[in-house]
Amino acid sequence: MTGPDESVEKAAWREQVGDGAFSANFHAASELIGKRWTGAIIRTLFHGKTRFREIADAIPGLSDRLLSERLKELRSHGVIEPRGDGQGYALTEKGRDLRLILREIAKWAHRWREGD
Amino acid sequence: MTGPDESVEKAAWREQVGDGAFSANFHAASELIGKRWTGAIIRTLFHGKTRFREIADAIPGLSDRLLSERLKELRSHGVIEPRGDGQGYALTEKGRDLRLILREIAKWAHRWREGD
Repeated sequence: MTGPDESVEKAAWREQVGDGAFSANFHAASELIGKRWTGAIIRTLFHGKTRFREIADAIPGLSDRLLSERLKELRSHGVIEPRGDGQGYALTEKGRDLRLILREIAKWAHRWREGD
Repeated sequence: MTGPDESVEKAAWREQVGDGAFSANFHAASELIGKRWTGAIIRTLFHGKTRFREIADAIPGLSDRLLSERLKELRSHGVIEPRGDGQGYALTEKGRDLRLILREIAKWAHRWREGD
């Protein structure tokens, strides 16, 4: 836990995200993304499933009521918007920008087999 | 939303995280990390605050009861462990490996000023 590698890592981390102060931005973002089912819904949209029924069918255990609630929240945060063609939802620029976060979560989950 | 850039991005994404199938690993990981307060707690540990009181004081609005609950969960998921010297908690290897996820969340939050 200590040693040269650890301090290099800490320095890199500080440079990246600022000092140790509580970050309201960070907190709000992690609460938004991590809310129950939200990660799975965004991941499904990234995979090109845009209609309510498609999203609901792609996520086992997610009720229509909760999906509807989550879509409303994501829309109010500007992460998704109704598609111009009326076929469900599309990720906005802000929503597509979540890609790197989701990728890192997927890689971590794969490395540690979280959920198996 | 469509066009060459979009399809390149999609291909890269698929290569990275597999096909569009629901991923139990991904789901479990995003629910763990995203649970209310968990992101902020892990971030605080990364910044070298390890004692219960230090963590509690660093996160405005987090009650002792909830902090205690979250620390128990993180411990049961193997993300943190009691420090050998009895001074609070340390991130395990699995926990330290969350660094890249937190970094991407911090960058996204900064770019989009989520929480302001």
